[in-house]
Amino acid sequence: MSKHPEHYIALSDLARKASHLRSVAALLGWDQETYMPAGGANARAEQVALMAGLQHEMLTDKKLGDLIESCAADTSLTSGDTPESANIREMRKDFNKRTKLPGELVSALAEATSRAQHAWKDAREKGDFGAFKPWLDKVLELTREKAQCLSDGKGELYDALIDDYEPDAKASEIEAIFTPLKDQISNLVLDIKENGKAPNREVLNRPIKPVKQEAFGKFVAEACGFDFSRGRLDITTHPFCEGVGPGDTRMTTRYREASWTDSLFGIMHEMGHGLYEQGLPLGAPHGQSDLPDQTGLPCGEAVSLGIHESQSRLWENAVGCSLPFWKWALPHAKEHLGSVIEDQTPESMASAITTAEPSLIRVEADEGTYNLHIMIRFELERALLAGDLDTADLPAAWNDAYKTYLGLDVPSDKEGVLQDVHWSFGLIGYFPTYTLGNLYAAQFWATVHEENPSLDDQIASGDFAPLLMWFRERIHQHGRRYTPAQLCEKATGKPLSAEPLVKYLKDKLYPVYGM
Amino acid sequence: MSKHPEHYIALSDLARKASHLRSVAALLGWDQETYMPAGGANARAEQVALMAGLQHEMLTDKKLGDLIESCAADTSLTSGDTPESANIREMRKDFNKRTKLPGELVSALAEATSRAQHAWKDAREKGDFGAFKPWLDKVLELTREKAQCLSDGKGELYDALIDDYEPDAKASEIEAIFTPLKDQISNLVLDIKENGKAPNREVLNRPIKPVKQEAFGKFVAEACGFDFSRGRLDITTHPFCEGVGPGDTRMTTRYREASWTDSLFGIMHEMGHGLYEQGLPLGAPHGQSDLPDQTGLPCGEAVSLGIHESQSRLWENAVGCSLPFWKWALPHAKEHLGSVIEDQTPESMASAITTAEPSLIRVEADEGTYNLHIMIRFELERALLAGDLDTADLPAAWNDAYKTYLGLDVPSDKEGVLQDVHWSFGLIGYFPTYTLGNLYAAQFWATVHEENPSLDDQIASGDFAPLLMWFRERIHQHGRRYTPAQLCEKATGKPLSAEPLVKYLKDKLYPVYGM
Repeated sequence: MSKHPEHYIALSDLARKASHLRSVAALLGWDQETYMPAGGANARAEQVALMAGLQHEMLTDKKLGDLIESCAADTSLTSGDTPESANIREMRKDFNKRTKLPGELVSALAEATSRAQHAWKDAREKGDFGAFKPWLDKVLELTREKAQCLSDGKGELYDALIDDYEPDAKASEIEAIFTPLKDQISNLVLDIKENGKAPNREVLNRPIKPVKQEAFGKFVAEACGFDFSRGRLDITTHPFCEGVGPGDTRMTTRYREASWTDSLFGIMHEMGHGLYEQGLPLGAPHGQSDLPDQTGLPCGEAVSLGIHESQSRLWENAVGCSLPFWKWALPHAKEHLGSVIEDQTPESMASAITTAEPSLIRVEADEGTYNLHIMIRFELERALLAGDLDTADLPAAWNDAYKTYLGLDVPSDKEGVLQDVHWSFGLIGYFPTYTLGNLYAAQFWATVHEENPSLDDQIASGDFAPLLMWFRERIHQHGRRYTPAQLCEKATGKPLSAEPLVKYLKDKLYPVYGM
Repeated sequence: MSKHPEHYIALSDLARKASHLRSVAALLGWDQETYMPAGGANARAEQVALMAGLQHEMLTDKKLGDLIESCAADTSLTSGDTPESANIREMRKDFNKRTKLPGELVSALAEATSRAQHAWKDAREKGDFGAFKPWLDKVLELTREKAQCLSDGKGELYDALIDDYEPDAKASEIEAIFTPLKDQISNLVLDIKENGKAPNREVLNRPIKPVKQEAFGKFVAEACGFDFSRGRLDITTHPFCEGVGPGDTRMTTRYREASWTDSLFGIMHEMGHGLYEQGLPLGAPHGQSDLPDQTGLPCGEAVSLGIHESQSRLWENAVGCSLPFWKWALPHAKEHLGSVIEDQTPESMASAITTAEPSLIRVEADEGTYNLHIMIRFELERALLAGDLDTADLPAAWNDAYKTYLGLDVPSDKEGVLQDVHWSFGLIGYFPTYTLGNLYAAQFWATVHEENPSLDDQIASGDFAPLLMWFRERIHQHGRRYTPAQLCEKATGKPLSAEPLVKYLKDKLYPVYGM
């Protein structure tokens, strides 16, 4: 496309402006978690609210809607598989969703979820589900209303919610993948439990100063391809990665002296997110995209939480917890971290960090068991939304599921149904994206190995460029040009399925547990 | 005042919103100088421009003007010496100034100064004033036009410009103070030069690691009263202090291993600005103001550059370079900085850092000679604006003045008339605020000593609270309630004059130079 028509240029300019507001809001958030002095908190809350208000105004402005419709009616823009046609399609979808919700419902949800979060915090403290139940009921009722507003009338209400996080995903399709996955992982985990053997993990708790952990983490991130001239690594209580704007991707982590691999894998996780952000076609050179600068346009944005999570999980688990990685990393680790890990071999490290041991708390779960936590939540929240499960029966249903799939008794709702903040936020349809991320990651990982049989050797020699370039080309450069399902099929030649993840986990876990 | 009328509340809300935009812009600027990765620069420029545009829109909105007029017509608000009446008076003044300049002139100035800055940079590099002259002519022409738009017709054009930096100051009044000051300081400096003695300053260049300098600088700032729960200290190439928002005052400095007192006095300078910002009535507790939160309102803003500079200069020079200060500071300095300064006494330190030695470059000038640089610039820029001096004759006039007042020959325009960026920015009327700051500081310093004869003993024992509280009460808590001249008279009982600064410099310099 040589030159864009005027309405497309005007639309891009508006979108770019709105994206700068988003960038500013992102910086305010980042600063709040990293460097803002405590005294700035009150004013910061007002600044954040002002930015959100201005952004909302811009993104629901009739002028924007008119430009979108004018471009959508222009076949020179919408015919063919072009970034322009994808941008218009996605902007139209976003605009319609944004303007579909009545203001009163948005306010009611904001108030209910704010109160529900407080109620949840108290209830969790006391392990008292009864105190949270009325708030959960209220949030569910309003969330159902929201889903009704957003729904296209086809399929179930849940689909209208998940679309915010995983566009075009359907609960029934997710179920079709999760059902075999759940059974096979549960069997695997229960087999391992019965088997009773476990590798020696003592090395993970040897004390290592945070400043050394940080230097090693940065060294690894840089080696994997994270560009520190277009990004940063800082410290926060809750690690995150934020694309503050084009050329500015900021990740954070935390350091604990007695668990040095936590920060390493935390950094590799956020780095996975960061590499995706750095690979989006935002006018910066990354060697793979020939798209013009897509700042503010859908083709410049990450396509879904699931795909985003596939990137973080892949670098954290598939790469970081592999033997080839430790063949390369261990000598560098010894150099950075000192004699405290002098006795380790790549094999001892790879085995120490590979686990599948049932536990009650999702955020502390290991790679082998994590998806079971997610799939339980998916089933329960789907049933809650559909009205097939009453909140009064939720704790029992939760505990049953943990017994069935993880073989665990839940001692109290504090370690059970009250452990996650998500539902109090009204985040229904969000949980499955975690396991979708793992599924995508495993399928990508299998494909890249099939296509590149030298991959393990490359990683063992510290050459991460071929792996990163595969993602740049197949995933990153496309932004939201395709749906996640299309992207998966384009990248791997197949629709998403459970098999690659099951195979990946078996291949990884059986040897470690001597099975 | 028990409860405000509705139009005052609406006006305050609007002002508060605009001030949050200013805060956000300030954070963008701070981040750009401290932590932003290089790759973020392009997008940041667009974000900054967007914020400036939104702020301008808000601050020139007819709705704001109408609210101001409605409040100004409400005698329940404007009668008496109340913060409300001051807020309305100042907001009206600001609004009128902002809406008086034609858009074309603003654009023309923006373009001309942007080009002039580039031209200045090149010209300075080559020491070629001729290459800068046409741009200076252009900037002067447009700045004259600007002054004509802003002028009330009384007094000279220069007054309309200085009002942006030092409200209500008049060139003729400044001249009346500067003229005796210039002669007396010049005589003092030339006497010292002739005298030929100089203290031993070798200690200032002993190598001290930046991390130690930083720890000591923070220790001193905290002891003086800077509240780190409402502020920060970071590193930048060009040190500054920015009131990012209520409860959030961020200062920066730079460290050079071979000049440790530079960072110490740099921190004390920015800390002086920071203490002023932290003392404004912005809803945070500082023990002196009973005003309601003035966020976004003139009474919550610093009154002038001169008064701001008085705070930084006072802490940097009057406090930091004094014998009482070093009686307290030296043991702490030895503890933080180590044995490298073990041989020092408070007397040796105080004498090493007190100087009055003519030099060519303003930003490197010492306390004794600095004001001569400023007063030369004031005379020249005033004559340029009035058309009494042609730019063609500027370099010669500059060199003459340096010969007369500092006894120096200027070897080239690079070290002469081309050294400062200000004029290329269109900053005419800005220079005198530096010396006004020193004049205010000396007059405040004399008054606080008269009122509190124990001040030196308090400082020598590390008790800075009485000094800080004096400023909180007399200066900080008032914001823009009074003009700088009124504030000076209220705080010291006298109008601003040259005597306190001359006496301060003589008292300080004569003993050090053995005169």
